[in-house]
Amino acid sequence: MAATQASGSQTTGHQLSGHVIDALQYSNWTRRHFEDWRAGGMTAVGVTIAYHERARDTLTRLGEWNWRLRENADLIRPIRRGGDLDAARDEGRIGVLLGAQNCSPIDDDVGLVQVMNDAGLKVMQLTYNNLSLIGAGCAELDDPGISRFGREVISEMNRVGMVIDMSHSAERTTLEAIELSSRPVAVTHANPRFFHDTPRNKSTDVLRALGESGGMFGFSLYPPHLADGAQTTLDTFTAMVARTAEIAGTGNIGIGSDLCQGWDGRTIDYMRNGRWRLVPQAERERFAATPWPDQPAWFQRSADMPKLADALRERGFSAADVDGIMGGNWARYLRDALEPTG
Amino acid sequence: MAATQASGSQTTGHQLSGHVIDALQYSNWTRRHFEDWRAGGMTAVGVTIAYHERARDTLTRLGEWNWRLRENADLIRPIRRGGDLDAARDEGRIGVLLGAQNCSPIDDDVGLVQVMNDAGLKVMQLTYNNLSLIGAGCAELDDPGISRFGREVISEMNRVGMVIDMSHSAERTTLEAIELSSRPVAVTHANPRFFHDTPRNKSTDVLRALGESGGMFGFSLYPPHLADGAQTTLDTFTAMVARTAEIAGTGNIGIGSDLCQGWDGRTIDYMRNGRWRLVPQAERERFAATPWPDQPAWFQRSADMPKLADALRERGFSAADVDGIMGGNWARYLRDALEPTG
Repeated sequence: MAATQASGSQTTGHQLSGHVIDALQYSNWTRRHFEDWRAGGMTAVGVTIAYHERARDTLTRLGEWNWRLRENADLIRPIRRGGDLDAARDEGRIGVLLGAQNCSPIDDDVGLVQVMNDAGLKVMQLTYNNLSLIGAGCAELDDPGISRFGREVISEMNRVGMVIDMSHSAERTTLEAIELSSRPVAVTHANPRFFHDTPRNKSTDVLRALGESGGMFGFSLYPPHLADGAQTTLDTFTAMVARTAEIAGTGNIGIGSDLCQGWDGRTIDYMRNGRWRLVPQAERERFAATPWPDQPAWFQRSADMPKLADALRERGFSAADVDGIMGGNWARYLRDALEPTG
Repeated sequence: MAATQASGSQTTGHQLSGHVIDALQYSNWTRRHFEDWRAGGMTAVGVTIAYHERARDTLTRLGEWNWRLRENADLIRPIRRGGDLDAARDEGRIGVLLGAQNCSPIDDDVGLVQVMNDAGLKVMQLTYNNLSLIGAGCAELDDPGISRFGREVISEMNRVGMVIDMSHSAERTTLEAIELSSRPVAVTHANPRFFHDTPRNKSTDVLRALGESGGMFGFSLYPPHLADGAQTTLDTFTAMVARTAEIAGTGNIGIGSDLCQGWDGRTIDYMRNGRWRLVPQAERERFAATPWPDQPAWFQRSADMPKLADALRERGFSAADVDGIMGGNWARYLRDALEPTG
């Protein structure tokens, strides 16, 4: 992987946003994780509350987060509208953006887009890895693009200000969502296929379409999305960032680490298998016995966020660009994306 | 029934609220009903969205109301916070307050109080006619008072600003709720037992406790709650209002008509029987063939609201008291009750 020199704007004296945002984490939450967010200087974090949960179970997940937000209100606060991002930063608390990695929270009911949005679900993937009622996930056998229901859901998500997240979706479904959505969509957590060629990562066509439409792409630090797994160097990583910036635009990229802490392999079993296949007991036990993949040495936890900023500066990105990639770009995107239009 | 002379304050020049509020209606909604609200000069209406619906079905009911509110946005708007009441009045639109006549919308999950409140459910009865997870309804065999879960739910409803409605609850459950709640509770739609002695109406003890605690009592115009059914005269009705004012306070009473339009007897079957008993087919057919009870001639529809105001003036209530009973009292109560405390 050749190291590309960053070609971002070299603005100095430019007003920095002061935002440090990670668009996706999913941990077995304790207060320690929120303290770690603070140690990383973070201003907002997107958290996953549902993978396969349908509407009813999503309500319980929302209730659990409401309580967690109250119990840790000195450290964290909810992000529901665009203005909440800067409010969180100014209060010195970390904003929490609740999201789902599937459209299962709305069941088959387009009216639930607004209901879930009102209840606090602000980001939703249109698919996880499999076929959903909306389109195809990246592990699916075929990809029919966006369904009739999906077009209605996209229109409602656009209206209420719920972020459309295509991280796990298949190619055609992803490109059609970008095309059909009247507002820019996001890929909260993935990497480019040119960096690591797996269906879960995104093609150059997707990167380009995202950038041209004003969307956002969040770089993942989850080892299976990286070129050399946990052995991937920070230098290789920032070279990939620089090349992506050339394709999607320096203003359209950010971090979506996919950092998962405090779980064992049973959670991967749940994420991968949900209830859609019958898992042989031997395989289930193998999942349970398998530890979570190791993180790269340079990104073990949220407190390591400043190391990414340092490495981006070393790569040649300007202070303004580093500020944008570390959080300013997500803040600018979300400030608009979370506002209802009708 | 002796006609009691109203003893309300005779203030003139007092600032009138301009509110005309009906705390409870349940119709087979069409735009015609909202036009009728306007014809009645109404500023806000409480509508029932659930009788036996558990959490999942409540979401669909919320979605249906969200869409109805959008389709008729020239006439109606949602009431979610205290300030929305005056905003609706000032915009010339009728505010809609969504409520449930049961605690079924939260299932067995205290976290769903906030989730449902955030999603737009702003009023909830702790019981319908039967035993709930919280307490006993007025038709139940015995009344254990408020349960352990109920105490948690009351505390959460107090916190988030969801109105506690005891209209259908049994005596002990109702009195305990008034006592346990840190904020005044409401009986949105009932009449005093001294007017018509049925378990569904409220004892003088309840009227007194409600008034002393700053709660609200909404008078029903549903024939089974009236002294002489549809034959009840407006004069008898306002005499009852005057006597209730002496017990509960002129500032603690309002209208909660329980007006139900566009239904046939199958809806009464659903309301009474839900899924808790097996209804013999012959009884089911009898329900289906029975028309909805006739309304009194002087309260056929929402457009008849001014007739109530006229009759209250004739009864001797001052302009300020009539304004309060017709809507000002509900407005003052709800302005506070709908605001979260934590």
